[in-house]
Order: sequence, then structure tokens, then C-alpha cells
Amino acid sequence: MNKYALYHKSDSLYGYAVDSRTVELRLRAARGDLADVSVIYGSKHAFYKYRSVVSMRLAASDGLFDYFTVKLKLSDTRLAYIFLLTDADGNKYYYSEDGATESYDFSVAFYNFFQLAYINKNDVMPCVDWLSRAVVYQIFVDRFKRSGKTEHRHGINMEWGGKPTPKSFAGGDLWGIAEELDRIADLGVDTLYLTPIFTSLSNHKYDISDYYNVDPDFGGNEAFENLMSECKKRGMRVILDAVFNHCSEHLREFRDVCEKGAASPYRDWFIINGDKPTKRPLNYEVFAECDYMPKWNTSNAQVQKYLCDVGEYWIKNYGIDGWRLDVSDEVSHDFWRVFRKRIKALGSDIVLIGENWHDSRSYLRGDQFDSIMNYAFTKAMLDYFAYGKLTTEELCFRLNELTMRNSEQVNLMMLNLLDCHDTHRFYTMCGADKEKLLCALAIEVFMPGASMVYYGTEIPLEGGYDPDNRRCFIPGDGEFAKKVKEVLKYKKLRALQEGSVSFSCENGLFVAERRAVGQTVTLLVNNTENALSSRGKNVAAKSYAVIAE
Amino acid sequence: MNKYALYHKSDSLYGYAVDSRTVELRLRAARGDLADVSVIYGSKHAFYKYRSVVSMRLAASDGLFDYFTVKLKLSDTRLAYIFLLTDADGNKYYYSEDGATESYDFSVAFYNFFQLAYINKNDVMPCVDWLSRAVVYQIFVDRFKRSGKTEHRHGINMEWGGKPTPKSFAGGDLWGIAEELDRIADLGVDTLYLTPIFTSLSNHKYDISDYYNVDPDFGGNEAFENLMSECKKRGMRVILDAVFNHCSEHLREFRDVCEKGAASPYRDWFIINGDKPTKRPLNYEVFAECDYMPKWNTSNAQVQKYLCDVGEYWIKNYGIDGWRLDVSDEVSHDFWRVFRKRIKALGSDIVLIGENWHDSRSYLRGDQFDSIMNYAFTKAMLDYFAYGKLTTEELCFRLNELTMRNSEQVNLMMLNLLDCHDTHRFYTMCGADKEKLLCALAIEVFMPGASMVYYGTEIPLEGGYDPDNRRCFIPGDGEFAKKVKEVLKYKKLRALQEGSVSFSCENGLFVAERRAVGQTVTLLVNNTENALSSRGKNVAAKSYAVIAE
Repeated sequence: MNKYALYHKSDSLYGYAVDSRTVELRLRAARGDLADVSVIYGSKHAFYKYRSVVSMRLAASDGLFDYFTVKLKLSDTRLAYIFLLTDADGNKYYYSEDGATESYDFSVAFYNFFQLAYINKNDVMPCVDWLSRAVVYQIFVDRFKRSGKTEHRHGINMEWGGKPTPKSFAGGDLWGIAEELDRIADLGVDTLYLTPIFTSLSNHKYDISDYYNVDPDFGGNEAFENLMSECKKRGMRVILDAVFNHCSEHLREFRDVCEKGAASPYRDWFIINGDKPTKRPLNYEVFAECDYMPKWNTSNAQVQKYLCDVGEYWIKNYGIDGWRLDVSDEVSHDFWRVFRKRIKALGSDIVLIGENWHDSRSYLRGDQFDSIMNYAFTKAMLDYFAYGKLTTEELCFRLNELTMRNSEQVNLMMLNLLDCHDTHRFYTMCGADKEKLLCALAIEVFMPGASMVYYGTEIPLEGGYDPDNRRCFIPGDGEFAKKVKEVLKYKKLRALQEGSVSFSCENGLFVAERRAVGQTVTLLVNNTENALSSRGKNVAAKSYAVIAE
Repeated sequence: MNKYALYHKSDSLYGYAVDSRTVELRLRAARGDLADVSVIYGSKHAFYKYRSVVSMRLAASDGLFDYFTVKLKLSDTRLAYIFLLTDADGNKYYYSEDGATESYDFSVAFYNFFQLAYINKNDVMPCVDWLSRAVVYQIFVDRFKRSGKTEHRHGINMEWGGKPTPKSFAGGDLWGIAEELDRIADLGVDTLYLTPIFTSLSNHKYDISDYYNVDPDFGGNEAFENLMSECKKRGMRVILDAVFNHCSEHLREFRDVCEKGAASPYRDWFIINGDKPTKRPLNYEVFAECDYMPKWNTSNAQVQKYLCDVGEYWIKNYGIDGWRLDVSDEVSHDFWRVFRKRIKALGSDIVLIGENWHDSRSYLRGDQFDSIMNYAFTKAMLDYFAYGKLTTEELCFRLNELTMRNSEQVNLMMLNLLDCHDTHRFYTMCGADKEKLLCALAIEVFMPGASMVYYGTEIPLEGGYDPDNRRCFIPGDGEFAKKVKEVLKYKKLRALQEGSVSFSCENGLFVAERRAVGQTVTLLVNNTENALSSRGKNVAAKSYAVIAE
């Protein structure tokens, strides 16, 4: 047995409550190394005398590891357990906090069994079901549609459809989005996610100077109220962008510090090395290297209150359905815990989605975010379709590894994406190959969690890195949009909303299978130049097929 | 290279902030497998162009793994990094979120580098220095000293020094403890930890019916006030036992539910399956299988407030220095987060120590406890000295593995113990071998963290499992106490309070070395029947020696 490969920690994503009576346990071992994995379990206070044994299921494999899982329904949730491992030669090992051993003394097990000591209600992370079913359409507002109803303070300095620069204003607004809702809904979308809409001097509005007013260039609060009401009519949800890592240098409180220095009551709202902020040398913390975006001190209790108030305001007064949290990995965990409590008190189905590009298990234990933007999935799709770096088998391994990074609940709330306003357009990365784009989108739709579509994917719009990825939307002939719609409609199937997932490579095809009670739906993707077939289905080169049972 | 053995996760105990500018990174690999481990690091937003490289140090090894560590002082704390691994044959690998690879594309590293995205002040876990230096004396109050000043409600039903039963009352009280403070302090103790003292019908008082009054049998609030004042005079600190997992069935609020059922405002303060609590069948959650100890519902906001108020009260009104948290692993994480904020607001040096018997990394990230009672250390000492299950090399491996379960700060606050009111006496487990007891105590004193001594160790007192481990304290001739005092005095050395630690096996001796700037102190323990020597020091059979430089 390969002892190096074994991994399990309790009270982590390897052992966690699924609901108030159910826990999921996971054990990692070297791929192909173990013939059987069982869990020996019982009530923590009686484990020395009463125990049950149940086999675990091989749920996923990656390049190195097998992942075994089991769900235990418990009457007494004070769970103690150890694993019983059987290798290919029939050798048996116990696996406890002391590692793998050939014998195990149950009489002193209280020292080294694994445990999930009790399931407390507040520690269970619930799954927000609507997010598992959602098809999300991301809009970069300045480039989506110009309604003509808005007076533009700064003027419009690019032609609609021209080449965007970092300083371009194309004049898109919220009235324009409202006009397009029927078309968007027809695509199969049920949720909008808008990049920031609050008052700001930039086109992207990630430098906010007034968190309580929609930018006049986007139509102001009136246009947003109208958009919300039009969305509600259609049953569409709206997620806004919460830029809580930094603000604009024009924010009133930051200006106050610039004027009064240490005498300002807002001095500690920012992170300044000195009395007053100076740009040369830059003596305050900022986003990236942007001196016009001072960083909030989210460890400060007053800042925490200020930003929580903002978070609440747009929910209470406009009825938004969630926040996408900008640069969330640079904001304090402590703040996110406070923020989650404030927001979830308004409605447990209001979602919080972090912009974390990396393994984010420390944010996803139920005390901070519901999920994150799944950039690791984006990278896997690029490696497979754009860079040709992964074989089909390797893609399965990668997706399995990603799935095993988080709990089941978190996976079902992931915001999966191929691209967004911060990446190259996926279509462009694939050499403007429409078939590849559709195949990748099909895989995205089959991933557990929500499926996000960046505006313009349905044209499809091209775009390199920022600002080129923020081109203006130009309605096309609708032919490609029909194909996108065809892919997105699969998200209506229950198996794709709540089912388990498995990935495999069959006869060269990538296969994703989603299984719910009474429904199995299978995706076959052919990312080769030749026709392939599996499960009695022929799949043409560079295309996909779906089998629903 | 053994890829199965590699382990690193960021924002965990493998990558965490030590202070507002410093992070510690750890990487695990197969023992002896890697010739060099370096970290390539830089600012997250500029990693594609500017990077530094630094070698990591082999800090510890266990039976399977080597642990490499490095501390990075950062000017920009938005840290991105990957590892560069060199195996014995000189092959080099990059290790990132995508695993070990032979090449690495820094231009798209933002997708798969490791990161600690920013150090926010509130997320840094501080070390409470006094706890790192503390010698803690645990007292089971009913059995320590009977002052004669207290009138005993229930009478005294055992002779002082008799054989205790679960229902014995020996009449020990807080006045008695106060009388012994000079002797206790002389032993080298600077902190008392008392098992529960609040009003309760049992001798152990883990079933509390009034959290605001010291049990009259212990002398009431007056005796406690006196004890606190006598302790303060001597510079001694006091830690009390917070029993927040459960209470007594005689607690007013629980009685109210028993009377009024669903009409009681306290109905949801407990976890009851039905309207009213019944014992047969038992329809409410309890501690272990004790129907007289109903479990608090620590997910309930009112209960959270009630228990936080209690936690605050004894700090504000009596000046206690910390809480030991009973059955803390069955209480909700959410509650502990609330509790920590409330308590630490009263003083950042008030300590919170969980009674968690298992790997508790999910409680020890700075948002819940400072540390736990180190029962895993207890088990290691038993395995080495009592059961003879570990060789000296295996003991080193075990202690290294324990050290690598937590961050440096947590290790420096661990409450190390050989025994307590919940275990057999260590002395008895070793066959009443005084030399083994002293050797084990010496190792305890050299462990990072506080050293706890269970009352009576200095006699030494014998004792099997509960209730036998709670015998009455009988002053002896003081000869053994002198030897205990000799061991405990090493805790006064700076290296043992703040130094790094390493364990090794040299010529059959167990060696623990603590190193601070300008001071190195080494412990040599001979757990064999023959004299051994190392580092120019002879160590007699079953004894220890210390070299201070």
C-alpha cells in the first residue's frame, strides 16, 4: 500500500456535514492501489464498544489519486470513525489520526480516532438551489447596449463597435439592458450578473466613489429600478458586483483623509504609511498598482459596517439576489464572516460568489462565500481546447481534482465560466473556432453549479486581453445564438441541476454523466478531427452529443 | 520524485501569516526524497515579470515525510509563489496548484500559482506570550484542600484520602487552594486552572445550574474573590473551566422548558425532539449519555448571548485570565467565533483553550481558540513511557508530526499535559515509576507551549480512571516535589518559552533542542535501563539531563 498517498482530515472537505443528520467522508489513496476502503464508525462516546462498518465508493480519480466517498445518515451525530483499507494483495490496514497501522486498539481509540464531534445547525453549509440551476449572463454595462435615454456626463468617445481602449466610453446603459431582456431570456438565461454599476469615473466602474447611487452614465437609480422590475416580471435574478477591496480616490471619506490627514475620522479606513496619502512615493495600499484605487482597510470595524450597510441597501431597496465579490481574496476573512451574517439574515437564498482565482477552501466552509468564480475550470477548458495541453483522460483527471477541492454543496453552487471581462475571450483563444466554443460550453453546462455566459458569446464576439475583451455587443443573424441556446437548454434538466457527476474518456470521447434519481444525462464531446462513437452514439469531429434517459 | 507525498495548500497551516509582514510556508515531501526545495515568489500582480527565489529549510521529519519551511518577510504582502523541487538525481520540478510539472508557464501563472493574496490585520493570529511561558497547575477543587471555613450543603461523605466514588464529596474548597498558593508558586507554577467552580449538585460541577455563582460548597463568590486577590498578589494567573456544551437539568431555563414545553421562551435553547424534555425515552440531546446534562443549543442566538455574557462576567468582575473550554469540539464553530470576539475585546491576552482531543486545525486558525489541551502529546508520552509502543526515533517522528499539525503561534500556546481529571494518572500508567514521570515531565517542559501539571503530580499521587484519578491531595515529605520543581524551573529559560524546537535520537537518547537568539537549551532523556551518553554528557538509565548554552 502506498502510505504516502493516503489523506484524510476531519472537519474539512474530507469530512463535513451535508445536512443536520448526514456527513460525507472522503479518503484519498494512490490511484489503483486499494481494492476496498471501508469506514468503521460509531457514536464518539461509545465507539469503544459499538461500531458499524460500511464500504466507501470510488467517486473520482485524478492522475495520482483515487477518491473514495461515503455519505452516512446518523441518528447520533457525534461521529467517531477510522478507515479500514485493503490493498490489492488483500493486506488490511487501519487508518486513524496516527496514520496507517496493522493493528488498532479500540479501547484507547478516543485518543486517535477521526471525529466529527457533533453537527451543530449553524455549521452546516446549505446549498442555495437556484444557483445550482442558474444560467448566468454577465454584462459589461458600457458595452452592451446604448439606449439613447441617458445623458452622458463624460460624453461618448468611441463608436459603437470600435476598438476599445482603457479610457473608452461607448455609452451602454441599464435602460439598454432592459430592452434586451426578452432576447437574453430566450437564450435560456435566468440570471444577470452586471459588472459594477455605481458612481465612478471609469468605464468599468471598479473605482467607486459613491456606493449608494448608480452611475448617471448608466441611467442612475431610476434605470436600475426599471431593470430590476423588468427582470422580476420575467423571473430573472440579478447579481451585482461588490467592489469591497478598494474604492475610488474620489470617495468622500478618502478625500477627507487627503485633506485632514491624521485628523480625519476616516484615517484608519484605508492603509496609509504616514499621515496623508501621497502618490509619489505611493504611501497607501491600492488595488494592483492603481493609485486611483485605494484599498479599504477591511479589518476596521467602521469600514466593515459601512460595506455591510451597502451590501444590505441594494438587497433591501432594490431586491437584488446576490453579490459577486470583487478581489475577494485580498479582503479579510473576518470581514467576509461579518458580511455573510448580515446578508444571509436578509434571506438565506441571497448568494455570495467570490472572485477567487485559486483553491479557496478556506473561504468555502460555510462562514464566508457560497462559491467562487470557477477559474480553475476556465483554465482546464483552455488547456484542453485552446492550448491542446491536456489529453481527454487528463481533462477528466483535472476536473475530478477540481471537484474534490470542495464540498458537494459548494460544487453545486460554483459559478463556472469560460471567460469574462478579466480574461481573453474563450472563442478567440480557440482561434475563433465556433465548434470548440460550443463543445466547451456544453462541458460547462454539465459541470455542477451555475453556468455563466459572457455577453457576446452568442454572436460570437472576439476579444483579446483587456480592454479588447470588452468590445461592444452587435446583434448578429442569430444563427450561432440558436446553437448556444441549444446547449444552455440542457441546464433545465434536473440531473444537471442536482445530480452527481462523473467524467470519463470513452473511445477518445470526453464523457460527462450527471445522475439524479430517475434521470441520467450524458454528454459526449469529440475534440478531435475524426468522427468517434460511444454508447451507441456517433459524434462528428469537433461536436458534442447528449443522451438523456 | 515521489509525487504522492507532496502536499501544500495555501491559506492553511501550510501557508499562513505569522505577523502583518511575515508568512510561513511549508511543503511536505517524502522523507529523504528531495535534495533541495526552494520557493519562487513575488507580488501577485507582478509575478509574471518579477520573482525571487529562496531555499527552504528541512524543519522536521516523521515516519513518512519531510517538512520544509521558510519564513518570508514581505514588503508587498500580496504573495504569489510556486515551489522548485530538486530530487536526489538532480531532476527539477515546479510544484503549483496544478501539481508537479517539468515546465511552468509564468505568463499564465495567475491561473495556478499558490497565493496568500494579502495579509489583513484581523486575520493574523497573535501569540499570547504569557501562555508560551506558563506553568499551569490543574486543580480538581473538591479534592485539593479542605479549609474548614466552608459549610457544606450536602455534607462531606468521604474521608480525606479515602477512595473516591462518582458521588463522593471530600470538602475541598477555594479557601483551601488560597492557603496553598505559596507552596504551589514555589513549585514553579504561575497559573492555576480550576475544574468548574460554579453552582452544581455534583462533585465535579460539570453540570452547572447557576453560571453566576461559585458553588457554596467551594466557598461561594467570596472565597473566589479572595483566591483571585491572593493569586494577583503573587502574580499568578487563573483559568476557569467554561462548560458551554451542556448544563445541569436544574438550570432555571431548562426547568422552565420542562414545565411549559413549547410555551417556554427557552424551548429552543436546548435540542429537544418533542415539546417537553422526557428522560424515558430520552428525547433531548445531552452530554455523553448523561440525562442530567442537557446540551445547549449553541446555534441559538440567545444562547450565544447568554454564554458570552457569562464568559465576560468572570473576566470583568473577577479578572480571570482565560477559559478552558469544556467539550469544545461538540459546540458550534459559529458560537466560538462569536465568543472569541466578545472575549478578546476585553483583552487580547485572555486565553481560550479548547478541550479538543483530536487534530483541531479547523478551530485554530485565529477565529476560534488560541490552542487546545494537547492530548495527542499525552498519547505520545504514554506510547513511549507507559506502553513501550514507540522507539525513540518513532517518538521524534510523532512529536514532529504533531508540531506540523498547527501553526507556530498555536504550537507556542498549546497546553501540554501528561494527565488530567479525565485520564488515568500518568504516574500510575507508568507502573508508579517516578523516574519515568520526571523524564516525561521534562519532555513536556521542553515542548513549545504551556506546561500543565495535574495537582498531586508532585507527591506523586496515584490514580486509575475516573473517579480514581481524582484522589485527595495529601502533602508528602516534599522530596519528590523538589525534583518536579527542578524540571519546571527550565521553563524560565527564554529558549523554552519562545525558541524553535527540534527532536532527535542520538546514541539511543531522546534529544529535544530549543533555540532562541543567543540561547540554546538541550534536553537528553534516557528511557532505557543502561547509561547512555551524547554531546559529552552522560545520562544515567531512566533519567534526564539538560545542557544550557
